[in-house]
Amino acid sequence: MDAHVFDQAIALTPTGEGRYTGATSPAYANMVGPFGGVTAATVLNAVLLHPALLGEPVALTVNFAAALADGPFEVLATPVRTNRSTQHWLVHITQNDDPQPVVTATAVTALPRQTWARNDSPAPTTPRPGDLPALAVKPPVPWIGQYDWRFLRGTLPVQWDGAQADASSLLWVRDALPRALDARSLTAMADVFFPRVWLARATRVPAGTVSMTVYYHARATDLQAQAASAWLLCQARPQAFAHGFNDQSAQLWSESGQLLASTHQTVYYKE
Amino acid sequence: MDAHVFDQAIALTPTGEGRYTGATSPAYANMVGPFGGVTAATVLNAVLLHPALLGEPVALTVNFAAALADGPFEVLATPVRTNRSTQHWLVHITQNDDPQPVVTATAVTALPRQTWARNDSPAPTTPRPGDLPALAVKPPVPWIGQYDWRFLRGTLPVQWDGAQADASSLLWVRDALPRALDARSLTAMADVFFPRVWLARATRVPAGTVSMTVYYHARATDLQAQAASAWLLCQARPQAFAHGFNDQSAQLWSESGQLLASTHQTVYYKE
Repeated sequence: MDAHVFDQAIALTPTGEGRYTGATSPAYANMVGPFGGVTAATVLNAVLLHPALLGEPVALTVNFAAALADGPFEVLATPVRTNRSTQHWLVHITQNDDPQPVVTATAVTALPRQTWARNDSPAPTTPRPGDLPALAVKPPVPWIGQYDWRFLRGTLPVQWDGAQADASSLLWVRDALPRALDARSLTAMADVFFPRVWLARATRVPAGTVSMTVYYHARATDLQAQAASAWLLCQARPQAFAHGFNDQSAQLWSESGQLLASTHQTVYYKE
Repeated sequence: MDAHVFDQAIALTPTGEGRYTGATSPAYANMVGPFGGVTAATVLNAVLLHPALLGEPVALTVNFAAALADGPFEVLATPVRTNRSTQHWLVHITQNDDPQPVVTATAVTALPRQTWARNDSPAPTTPRPGDLPALAVKPPVPWIGQYDWRFLRGTLPVQWDGAQADASSLLWVRDALPRALDARSLTAMADVFFPRVWLARATRVPAGTVSMTVYYHARATDLQAQAASAWLLCQARPQAFAHGFNDQSAQLWSESGQLLASTHQTVYYKE
């Protein structure tokens, strides 16, 4: 059986000592280079494939230092500090023998522990995704077609007329082709949100994620409990646009309302 | 004139090629090691002092890989990618000739640009800080005494009785000894929040920041417009406690309601 298109996209071939080779996937192409969520998932994959790995993802920060070019790339994942129950990682992606990285990243992994737990961010009450219409437009770039989208609010503007509007979104998302949810696909889905500045201004200015952080509140056992075609309820909002950058804070809940991840990013925009 | 106690605490001596030496400050001591906000500010200081610096801070992620021991430390700040208007940084703190870092960090700096701007996170309406009582207790650890605190809600529990409660906070904060606000002190104040798990559970379990991210919405000109004794309105809330970690999202506004920074962290807690 062929691997899922997402697993093909994030596939890495180990070449020793935390080094891997990979290649961008046309299936997840964005306007320029690949969908950033797949790049972030590839970074995490390098950590998860590492023979020295301790535990499961707790935090990941991915910095997009330059545009990833379509084609092959090299990944280097290094466990820089291993404690009794936590581990700290440094990850770099480079291309074409340029020593300057196109992506830098840090990650924290930890052994899963049963502790006191509480959800302080209940999921909004919404209609079921099956009762909502699918995205009506043909995906303008390939990666958008890899997801099944059910927007409750905050989809792309219908008219690009420069009208200012609220820039928050609430939507259900899942892989278009069913795949069991794991930390890799969760990481990619943490970046599915269209640029907030487009919603805020109804103007398609150039925009791109510069730095993205994911905090994982679920462990493998939580994720394995989700059905293969399970939906994630996703919410995103910006807090400030200034000096050519805006932030974005987002949540990803399971269908039963468990907060699986919270995620934040800062996004460059022109003008 | 002697330097401000904060500037003494984050002071670095360049030793060449992005390397610096520094030392922890007893004035900002926490229960174990120094207040993490001062460590984060020291990381940023290494970037800001670097001769190759381009622009001003946009994003900073600091990972606390191990407890910083009281005493001297070494910092290495490397500009790993310099673009036309942005620059990506890697920073490490090491101690006692141990090659494993105690702190890893990434930062993004960018040339300030005048662009379209909007505040989507208005400051809550509150009484003026001067009309609120100061912290009544003697600072239990030195760093707390370096700040002037005016809590509106969410201070430490009065009784450590294990009662579950809301774990959000709203407070005014400033340096106890007046100092002009800059990106360094703003970074430290992004970490002034007491552990959310203490508020949530009224139980003083061991807790410590593992990874912290700051997004800077203000540039030097915005910060220089603040009075030397200006207050910051600070709000923090957790979204989920699970598997021994909780997240925290926070905002820091100027007295006039400008969102100067948004900041997020994941925090380890025991049991």
